[in-house]
Amino acid sequence: MKNKDKYFMKLAIKEAKKANNEVFPNPKVGCLIVKDEKVISRGFHRRYGGRHAEQVAIDNLSQEITNATMYVTLEPCAHKGKTSPCIDLIDPSIFNRVVISSLDPNPSAVGGIKAILNKKISVTKNVCNIKSKKINPRFFTYHEKKRPYVIMKAALTLDGFIAESNGISKWITNENSRRSVHELRSSCDAILIGNKTALIDNPSLDSHGKGKDPIPIIIDRSKSLKKKLKIFKRTPIVFSGDILKSKPLNNVKIILDELYERNIQSVLVEGGGFTITHFLNSGFFDELHLYYAPKFLGSGISIFNTIRSIKDSSNLILKKVDKFKNDFRVIYKRKY
Amino acid sequence: MKNKDKYFMKLAIKEAKKANNEVFPNPKVGCLIVKDEKVISRGFHRRYGGRHAEQVAIDNLSQEITNATMYVTLEPCAHKGKTSPCIDLIDPSIFNRVVISSLDPNPSAVGGIKAILNKKISVTKNVCNIKSKKINPRFFTYHEKKRPYVIMKAALTLDGFIAESNGISKWITNENSRRSVHELRSSCDAILIGNKTALIDNPSLDSHGKGKDPIPIIIDRSKSLKKKLKIFKRTPIVFSGDILKSKPLNNVKIILDELYERNIQSVLVEGGGFTITHFLNSGFFDELHLYYAPKFLGSGISIFNTIRSIKDSSNLILKKVDKFKNDFRVIYKRKY
Repeated sequence: MKNKDKYFMKLAIKEAKKANNEVFPNPKVGCLIVKDEKVISRGFHRRYGGRHAEQVAIDNLSQEITNATMYVTLEPCAHKGKTSPCIDLIDPSIFNRVVISSLDPNPSAVGGIKAILNKKISVTKNVCNIKSKKINPRFFTYHEKKRPYVIMKAALTLDGFIAESNGISKWITNENSRRSVHELRSSCDAILIGNKTALIDNPSLDSHGKGKDPIPIIIDRSKSLKKKLKIFKRTPIVFSGDILKSKPLNNVKIILDELYERNIQSVLVEGGGFTITHFLNSGFFDELHLYYAPKFLGSGISIFNTIRSIKDSSNLILKKVDKFKNDFRVIYKRKY
Repeated sequence: MKNKDKYFMKLAIKEAKKANNEVFPNPKVGCLIVKDEKVISRGFHRRYGGRHAEQVAIDNLSQEITNATMYVTLEPCAHKGKTSPCIDLIDPSIFNRVVISSLDPNPSAVGGIKAILNKKISVTKNVCNIKSKKINPRFFTYHEKKRPYVIMKAALTLDGFIAESNGISKWITNENSRRSVHELRSSCDAILIGNKTALIDNPSLDSHGKGKDPIPIIIDRSKSLKKKLKIFKRTPIVFSGDILKSKPLNNVKIILDELYERNIQSVLVEGGGFTITHFLNSGFFDELHLYYAPKFLGSGISIFNTIRSIKDSSNLILKKVDKFKNDFRVIYKRKY
């Protein structure tokens, strides 16, 4: 039973992975319906606001069945969100068993297992739990660590500069790299920059039509930024001296706490150098996306401003390297 | 005929590519013997001092034939080197035609075509010439540009430093990266460093048993380096004020001219920052191999020391990115 459960749960995980960024901030979920050890239906949660995986799988059933088993990568929800609670769909005349991988860490969604048991349907949980959590790092980080999933992005020359000494950084990387950044933006709930970047680059911080636009966030301690900057057209969240302390390193936690309260599940930190340095030093980050262009500046604004030794580890695990014409992007994940 | 020649020459090029670094400083060469539009034998030049491609292909013939065509990626040699001249092997009782891709640019090797024609064998040349030259960038650069093929290598932190401010650089990159550098060294005729690198790192500059050791070269204008440094055990070529001028940029040409005279076909420039900067600025280089480790230093010795603008192009074409555990290496080629 145990090995069979693992076998079918791995298939359900595969199903879940079919979702792309459209699903955010919801988790990717996959569901199988199994009868007499055969998969007779499957489904995944495709986009935010759309049908949940359980509903898709049940809708896909082509025949009336009884005594089936449902395999689902996340505990079915017991609350009414954009859709009806999934537990209402799990009919004891169809299912006599539900196998669940991860429990729902969202406090407002729990109660699924209890509700299923109340229907006299048996439940097996935590099957392939680690594997299944890996497909939803943003969702689980948000609920378990009670902070947004933090992705940092920078565009650099080969010698590590993010701008000329005068602050000019348009453009270090090529169009293909920048398009990929716009896609990354569209996958994030919010995007954060420091006040210098807001002032010098005057960015719109949108996804350039690649998808939804993230909520802009600015760190502006002294509230000195002029309201005519492009970013203010999009009613940004501004972190100022009202809640920030004097030590920037401590402010990372303050900012992330506040974003957690505002239900922001993922935030893209786009610079500048000081903002990235504070996040790197704080350890409160999950991914680092560095875009390098084949240029040397010799001097300029550095990506990192604290002096470290070559013996100091950055706790980074290399995940992926991609080419964008003559630029390349490297993705590191933080090791915990 | 033309298309058939191209077809067979591409196969011969494929054959040539089977050679690895053992062939250096000889070119990679492939050879096919074709009779009645069928390939009846093939061969490639495997290692320096070993049989040439033509000889391998002729030795591989399993039957006596007449009126065959030989396809060879480089003009057969007419001089006695480590082996007898290949033209002696091209017997008019076997061959009535020889198709050649590239002419031999080595002045001491020319005369092959003339010798073949003298045997009343017809010759077609320059078939897939560009493709065929690409497999031997070192060989053709040396003979056509009359300078060694220059590969630059550096190990950097993600923020572009090659050492701490005190010069310490052991070790920025991991063992896998360094092993890959030892392999690269074993493929080069010589390896060049500046005097600061010789002094601070005191490197042996060998291939650590990965293959042959390249000839060490040091730039030491004032001849101030102590003879007890490891590098002097390997009788390096030392460039001093005897031939170097005051402007380092001009010295790149002086050094490469001298290395050409000394029959050094490929040189690996391993630093430090000033040496790499002068070579980058001179434009006299062919490949740039950058090894990045997941570290940030915040300050230290930079890889590049001239101030440039983000509008300045480095004329670099991205060829390849490889992972070495959590390090990665990016290979750029210079655009001409």
